[in-house]
Amino acid sequence: MAEQLNTGRLRHFLSELSALVSRANGDEAIILKDGADLLRNLVAVDDWLPADCAQGRPQGYQQHLLYCDPQERFSVVSFVWGPGQETPVHDHTVWGLVGQLRGSERSIGYELRDGRMTPTDNAVLQTGEVVAVSPRVGDIHKVSNAETDRDSISIHVYGANIGAVRRHVFASDGKESTFISGYSNTTLPNIWGMTG
Amino acid sequence: MAEQLNTGRLRHFLSELSALVSRANGDEAIILKDGADLLRNLVAVDDWLPADCAQGRPQGYQQHLLYCDPQERFSVVSFVWGPGQETPVHDHTVWGLVGQLRGSERSIGYELRDGRMTPTDNAVLQTGEVVAVSPRVGDIHKVSNAETDRDSISIHVYGANIGAVRRHVFASDGKESTFISGYSNTTLPNIWGMTG
Ligand SMILES: [Fe+3]
Ligand SMILES: [Fe+3]
Ligand SMILES: [Mg+2]
Repeated sequence: MAEQLNTGRLRHFLSELSALVSRANGDEAIILKDGADLLRNLVAVDDWLPADCAQGRPQGYQQHLLYCDPQERFSVVSFVWGPGQETPVHDHTVWGLVGQLRGSERSIGYELRDGRMTPTDNAVLQTGEVVAVSPRVGDIHKVSNAETDRDSISIHVYGANIGAVRRHVFASDGKESTFISGYSNTTLPNIWGMTG
Repeated sequence: MAEQLNTGRLRHFLSELSALVSRANGDEAIILKDGADLLRNLVAVDDWLPADCAQGRPQGYQQHLLYCDPQERFSVVSFVWGPGQETPVHDHTVWGLVGQLRGSERSIGYELRDGRMTPTDNAVLQTGEVVAVSPRVGDIHKVSNAETDRDSISIHVYGANIGAVRRHVFASDGKESTFISGYSNTTLPNIWGMTG
């Protein structure tokens, strides 16, 4: 598969996304609407993700940076979930788009009600689907692999260098802890020297 | 040294360069002038180049991609020259800036005169210096390590995804051969997850 990787699909996505973010000039509604279309096209065919960025780990879900805009206006990350793996309840503080490339994942939205973090909605994102998060459309959730027997992979786009953003995880009583996720990978795939 | 890598210097350069290329909107004179200032700042201090991108090889000079703009408006490449290593006589077809980070390198400019590739100028770029190439300011040259006992490293910025550009090498009688350089590295350093 590595020999036939269609890196042109990812390059095209990054080119269009970069142009969109410049054009939108901070208008989140435009970015989420047009960005969802771009991301839906990207995850419609599973022939482009470099193998290094599809690797899971028994210790927990992986966050492989694919690309970060040099002005840190956006980043693109491949999340890999093994069976049983899940995030804590967390926020993002910036806009985000999630596109399901392989398998499926469950997102449970939360709100603080009467001193308890309370689930408000529960949705499974199927392969090929795209969903948005942001402080405006709902920013606190817990994500888990909805497949019990295999990895699921989703492609995330955020309105910042998400690995360096100071954000929060939430205990069941609503108590916040600050966290900075970082990235799982120390090297990025070089998708620019390949053709296709 | 890896622990204290000042990746913030490279991140700042990429951010400023990306903004410049957007602002200049294709005006090469502006890019070469303001880009030279940015590159001069980048190579003024040698505390930021990831070790993977400083590696030479006995087989020949190395071209490590550091960053490619998603719209392929520019790319940034670390060239590593071992003692005795040199390029063929070649062109670029797009604007370029070269900043000397370590050691020094010799560039000999060429023109076709009476059916022979003839040297027209000969200059050594010293550590910290920056020079431009382009079809407008002189595009054909041969580059070699000017140090006999150690590697030299220069940082190149080009007005395209240079590893994918169809360009030329020249025989002594001026005969052109097309080449596409590609890149030496299959992975790029992830400079976005580190602080500093
Ligand atoms: Fe999330
Ligand atoms: Fe050159
Ligand atoms: Mg399913």
